[in-house]
Amino acid sequence: MSAPKKVVLAYSGGLDTSIILKWLQTEYGCEVVTFTADLGQGEELEPARKKAELLGIKPENIYIEDIREEFVRDFVFPMFRANAVYEGLYLLGTSIARPLISKRLVEIAEATGADAVAHGATGKGNDQVRFELAAYALNPDIKVIAPWREWDLTSRTRLLEFAETNQIPIAKDKRGEAPFSVDANLLHTSSEGKVLEDPADMAPDYVYQRTVHPEDAPNEPEFIEIGFEKGDAVSINGEAMSPATILTKLNEYGGKHGIGRLDLVEGRFVGMKSRGIYETPGGTILLEAHRGIESITMDRGAMHLKDQLMPQYAELIYNGFWYSPEREMLQAAIDKSQEHVTGTVRVKLYKGLASTVGRWSDHSLYSEAHVTFEEDAGAYDQKDAAGFIQLNALRLKLLAARDKRLSK
Amino acid sequence: MSAPKKVVLAYSGGLDTSIILKWLQTEYGCEVVTFTADLGQGEELEPARKKAELLGIKPENIYIEDIREEFVRDFVFPMFRANAVYEGLYLLGTSIARPLISKRLVEIAEATGADAVAHGATGKGNDQVRFELAAYALNPDIKVIAPWREWDLTSRTRLLEFAETNQIPIAKDKRGEAPFSVDANLLHTSSEGKVLEDPADMAPDYVYQRTVHPEDAPNEPEFIEIGFEKGDAVSINGEAMSPATILTKLNEYGGKHGIGRLDLVEGRFVGMKSRGIYETPGGTILLEAHRGIESITMDRGAMHLKDQLMPQYAELIYNGFWYSPEREMLQAAIDKSQEHVTGTVRVKLYKGLASTVGRWSDHSLYSEAHVTFEEDAGAYDQKDAAGFIQLNALRLKLLAARDKRLSK
Amino acid sequence: MSAPKKVVLAYSGGLDTSIILKWLQTEYGCEVVTFTADLGQGEELEPARKKAELLGIKPENIYIEDIREEFVRDFVFPMFRANAVYEGLYLLGTSIARPLISKRLVEIAEATGADAVAHGATGKGNDQVRFELAAYALNPDIKVIAPWREWDLTSRTRLLEFAETNQIPIAKDKRGEAPFSVDANLLHTSSEGKVLEDPADMAPDYVYQRTVHPEDAPNEPEFIEIGFEKGDAVSINGEAMSPATILTKLNEYGGKHGIGRLDLVEGRFVGMKSRGIYETPGGTILLEAHRGIESITMDRGAMHLKDQLMPQYAELIYNGFWYSPEREMLQAAIDKSQEHVTGTVRVKLYKGLASTVGRWSDHSLYSEAHVTFEEDAGAYDQKDAAGFIQLNALRLKLLAARDKRLSK
Amino acid sequence: MSAPKKVVLAYSGGLDTSIILKWLQTEYGCEVVTFTADLGQGEELEPARKKAELLGIKPENIYIEDIREEFVRDFVFPMFRANAVYEGLYLLGTSIARPLISKRLVEIAEATGADAVAHGATGKGNDQVRFELAAYALNPDIKVIAPWREWDLTSRTRLLEFAETNQIPIAKDKRGEAPFSVDANLLHTSSEGKVLEDPADMAPDYVYQRTVHPEDAPNEPEFIEIGFEKGDAVSINGEAMSPATILTKLNEYGGKHGIGRLDLVEGRFVGMKSRGIYETPGGTILLEAHRGIESITMDRGAMHLKDQLMPQYAELIYNGFWYSPEREMLQAAIDKSQEHVTGTVRVKLYKGLASTVGRWSDHSLYSEAHVTFEEDAGAYDQKDAAGFIQLNALRLKLLAARDKRLSK
Repeated sequence: MSAPKKVVLAYSGGLDTSIILKWLQTEYGCEVVTFTADLGQGEELEPARKKAELLGIKPENIYIEDIREEFVRDFVFPMFRANAVYEGLYLLGTSIARPLISKRLVEIAEATGADAVAHGATGKGNDQVRFELAAYALNPDIKVIAPWREWDLTSRTRLLEFAETNQIPIAKDKRGEAPFSVDANLLHTSSEGKVLEDPADMAPDYVYQRTVHPEDAPNEPEFIEIGFEKGDAVSINGEAMSPATILTKLNEYGGKHGIGRLDLVEGRFVGMKSRGIYETPGGTILLEAHRGIESITMDRGAMHLKDQLMPQYAELIYNGFWYSPEREMLQAAIDKSQEHVTGTVRVKLYKGLASTVGRWSDHSLYSEAHVTFEEDAGAYDQKDAAGFIQLNALRLKLLAARDKRLSK
Repeated sequence: MSAPKKVVLAYSGGLDTSIILKWLQTEYGCEVVTFTADLGQGEELEPARKKAELLGIKPENIYIEDIREEFVRDFVFPMFRANAVYEGLYLLGTSIARPLISKRLVEIAEATGADAVAHGATGKGNDQVRFELAAYALNPDIKVIAPWREWDLTSRTRLLEFAETNQIPIAKDKRGEAPFSVDANLLHTSSEGKVLEDPADMAPDYVYQRTVHPEDAPNEPEFIEIGFEKGDAVSINGEAMSPATILTKLNEYGGKHGIGRLDLVEGRFVGMKSRGIYETPGGTILLEAHRGIESITMDRGAMHLKDQLMPQYAELIYNGFWYSPEREMLQAAIDKSQEHVTGTVRVKLYKGLASTVGRWSDHSLYSEAHVTFEEDAGAYDQKDAAGFIQLNALRLKLLAARDKRLSK
Repeated sequence: MSAPKKVVLAYSGGLDTSIILKWLQTEYGCEVVTFTADLGQGEELEPARKKAELLGIKPENIYIEDIREEFVRDFVFPMFRANAVYEGLYLLGTSIARPLISKRLVEIAEATGADAVAHGATGKGNDQVRFELAAYALNPDIKVIAPWREWDLTSRTRLLEFAETNQIPIAKDKRGEAPFSVDANLLHTSSEGKVLEDPADMAPDYVYQRTVHPEDAPNEPEFIEIGFEKGDAVSINGEAMSPATILTKLNEYGGKHGIGRLDLVEGRFVGMKSRGIYETPGGTILLEAHRGIESITMDRGAMHLKDQLMPQYAELIYNGFWYSPEREMLQAAIDKSQEHVTGTVRVKLYKGLASTVGRWSDHSLYSEAHVTFEEDAGAYDQKDAAGFIQLNALRLKLLAARDKRLSK
Repeated sequence: MSAPKKVVLAYSGGLDTSIILKWLQTEYGCEVVTFTADLGQGEELEPARKKAELLGIKPENIYIEDIREEFVRDFVFPMFRANAVYEGLYLLGTSIARPLISKRLVEIAEATGADAVAHGATGKGNDQVRFELAAYALNPDIKVIAPWREWDLTSRTRLLEFAETNQIPIAKDKRGEAPFSVDANLLHTSSEGKVLEDPADMAPDYVYQRTVHPEDAPNEPEFIEIGFEKGDAVSINGEAMSPATILTKLNEYGGKHGIGRLDLVEGRFVGMKSRGIYETPGGTILLEAHRGIESITMDRGAMHLKDQLMPQYAELIYNGFWYSPEREMLQAAIDKSQEHVTGTVRVKLYKGLASTVGRWSDHSLYSEAHVTFEEDAGAYDQKDAAGFIQLNALRLKLLAARDKRLSK
């Protein structure tokens, strides 16, 4: 790979990406464009502008954007249509944000004439894969620079030395090492590393940042009603809201009731297992509610196929293949299944648990006439069941008859 | 089908199966053998013997058995190895008990020279299918009699008349109609019908029979440690126990903490949707813990394949195909995956929620050396990730290059 | 089911459906509308009109239609996009025609105010299921009449008696029993029953009706080029043609070269196995060519997902679930995958075998630069493979290390 | 990776692996052990011993083995139980041989105290991945050396120079470049590269080495009977044979009749597409016959599940994951399905085509009584089909009723 001339850097404004910024300038002598996005991580963006300027970035090379609506509308919601969970439990909060960041990096590279993009993910994790696969899928000629895989700043001490040497301001609380590493966006907060590395040990309380302890949550349950249209949440308690507003609101509900905590050991795409603490308050409520509205509006055949496809869909997102033809194929199937997933779900929130307790819809397939224990006025002829069973049994009888014959 | 001469009836001792017993005698003039099993439903069995005798069953034709250990060891545990949930949520508590009952019915038929078996499931539900498919798979020549699909006792009034005409004692509380219908065994209690028929309405409190309301559960969390060997739970808090004892114990823990309630609308195999309230206290803890021990002892490739196969496996059990070659194929794959699923999981129980908070095992695949943020002494070369990403990206780049070429 | 007042009958003009026509009139006293379709079965339609008139059908109640283009465009081609084969071998020639016939029956019922449709499939086969599931999926209130399951004309003798009694003309060659039963349309001819019932015996030569014996095919191979656009064949040897014309033409090629014969024992949806002889000359060439064009234009990830979904897709069509949400979900995924399946395939036809021998496309993903044994000018860095392998191997190494550790 | 001390080399005796042998000695100064296996590639092994000796290998470090029986029994046959084909067509002839070679390399390394193994696969292909994943899965501490990814002998000229410099004898016909590259074993011969690199061009006749041109095959068909036990071929025309003997014999039949040629563009695991010409004469017959015996002895449910799992199974083998838990899980499921796949198939061989024309078995599930067009003596009640259809249709009717309701 030839040296990059102009690089778009995913820049948080924090110490690590500031070091990367400077390192790119010194290592490659290249022009740097910074991209700082509000994905709902809960940090001010303007300080990033100041720091970028301080590090010599030209104003026209500083991109600061609020992409929360796009994030929820085009990434989070399509994923939730699939009820996607990785390894049975993980709601993919980090995974789903990466392709959007790469998309903007590549677009800004094209707009600014940059030939490369750069990110601050390490060489051990999944995020490098997600950033880079997305970038290459969107622009096959882009260069991707992953400083953590290249440089020799392999210890905290050396990083801090580099920062000092290069006049990068170091916040006081960044001098010491953080006891764990954090990633956050509107969908979730993940924490991993250091004090969390022994999966036998319970995560200390101070790790959780976004949800109260269930023990500290209100002693009274709260009930909310979530409205859906074609598989996406569109309202809470009857009030229509934008995608990002809904997720923000659900995060408040979930956070208040201690909902959406997960202590997980997961298999990384790069091969080893890692342990993470995830907080996905709004997403956890959303998943429960989405399952709830599907339960009355989606046909059994469609639902079972969808359930069967889900693990591969989740794996593709986890592994960084959002922009792949097979993810798009699965999305087409999933979206097809959501055409009637419209209606309202009532969810109980209490001490860490979100539970569907009611659901209704004009699109409902539930037929009391068919299922009732009472007289059904001919909706269903119980005698049909006899034939149904006989023909379903036929192949099993033929198998049993063979066993009987052969065992004689 | 020619008339049966001798029928083995799944007999609970209750009013409905007593009516069936008498109906079989009068309708077919056949000898009846009763089979009453303790599957952990929490009822005394000896009264069933008395009632059977009262209805004229010969002592040698009364079979009363405690099959809880077989139920958990050979049915519940193999199913939990798969983390089986139907439509994302249902732990299959009713479904998994049916094949065992049919197995004993068929075995008793063979032992007593009976040519038929009979069950008390209606023509609208899944249970008739499960009973009958299992029976036919085990004996292709057996007759199965489903009185609810045959007789004309189609209202409560006519049933009670029949009972009175035939001197079947009617318990006082059975005069009026039950407000909903219940099925129970060691794994779960299900309630459905009548007051539960509108899925928009929250289930009334009195429906729940096996778990306290989360609101009434202890205000302090409780922690337990569950030991696993090859995928099956073998101990609690270090104390080795038999399968049925473990499940019984977990039910106590779960019931006390309000764990395992589910309000679900599900798609029945016979075609309509129905709404059920399920309580699976021990099973809910077991599923969480099993996922927990798998997370450190099972390889990612195996786990993802297993997750992908699970929905079909669950559907087979739900639909009554326990004794089918495809369920056995999937079981072979699942059991193969459990050879190293051995170790201990720590679970927090609190107000309706069971959460894994720690796990450890001699069989662990978790490698702190590989995952650590610290210096890893060469366990992992971050530069390998670059090649890994490049080759994973290659096909995506070729796709993107095509798009670029064609859009020119 | 109340008695039908007006019935739309799938009417071939042959003896069996003429008997059904008369039976409907006499049994139910209902008005009959006949629907006779040209699906490419190779029979004149006008005689059917005459026979219908002879049997008293009013001219306005006689529907005769050429639906070959719709058949190939909307049913055969979408199915071939999936490379659908049932049980590894069967190209679904009968299965795919049924939903279209039902669609027209239901539409004509709506147009003529009929409350029922009727078909001539027996109670042992799959076709009854396909006809009826499609009809119910398109009109939930339609009645479907399947005379073969209802009447008592259960022997050839009684059928002929009924025909004679009712003045239905009997062609001379229909007096005796046909040695096997035939179904045909533009996609295939199937033969089954009677002389074919022992699957150990080779099918006699006279069974084959549409393809020459490979031994009698030309001694010289013939090469044709098939053009594709978005997964569908659009031209032969550079000449653009309509869907039905292409299939007709491919049938000629295939028939001439003895291509597309299949002797199969298959598992029917209704439970037993049956043996069929299929001739699908054009379809067999089309499948080979479609695979050929996919091989250079479709990404590996998309193709592998598609291959994995195919058996379920084929099963759905075989079982009669064309009009089901899950088939439509799969179709959405499959169609998504075909957007670039555009280009040309060269196929060799010789003595029963159709083989792709060349393929080219502007949409090709094949990159000689990447694959060449020669110097590749930096298109591919072989050193990347080392990292790729290391990270793919990591989980396998961790597994092996565990085995080593535990075996000590 | 520290330098290897003793290396076991997969050594063919040819020029390329002789160069590798010498390069290992000179580059690493390490001791070399050679492993030359007869996998049925059709070459003498003893010359390899002489060459190894000539290159200074100590007699006790020369391993020459006939592993054909192990190859067919433990690798080829288990794979054929799955009817495995990659991307719909490729019988995996190269892929399946690699894990066995790696297994012996690792075992010999352990026996001789070697710390590394080496292979002659290039950095662009799949074989490097297969060799190395297998080696690491069997010994996590083994070093694997892939000279083609390391050295600078990147042109034919430099290779020949190295050979001359190091007194490696060069066969006359190896001076010029081969027009394509070949791999062969008892299952297949593959040819790729150079003259085959344009997938639009038909492969020249001289590429084919193992099968006659169909045009040159006998003008009369030949019929053979293949006996199976539990999914594996055990006899031909009634004569019991060992696995390798059977495959050898089938290769003769297939080669004679021009059977098993395949011209394929496939998606490599390392990311690009490549074009190969495969000849798998015996395997092609075996696949057809195996499908044939399954068709009467395997239940539909088992077969459909197996068909659905196959593409992933084939992909795992293609990608080099033979020794992975997920392949072993799938194998457990597949082997379970083969318990009754016992019986005989009659296959017609003619001009490139192998076709099942008859099959019979004591384990047959085919029931003429159930399927017959004749009177079936009560084996099957056609009226059962009505109930079967009604309940299968119920969910479709509920969907259609919803559409009707909503469109009002």
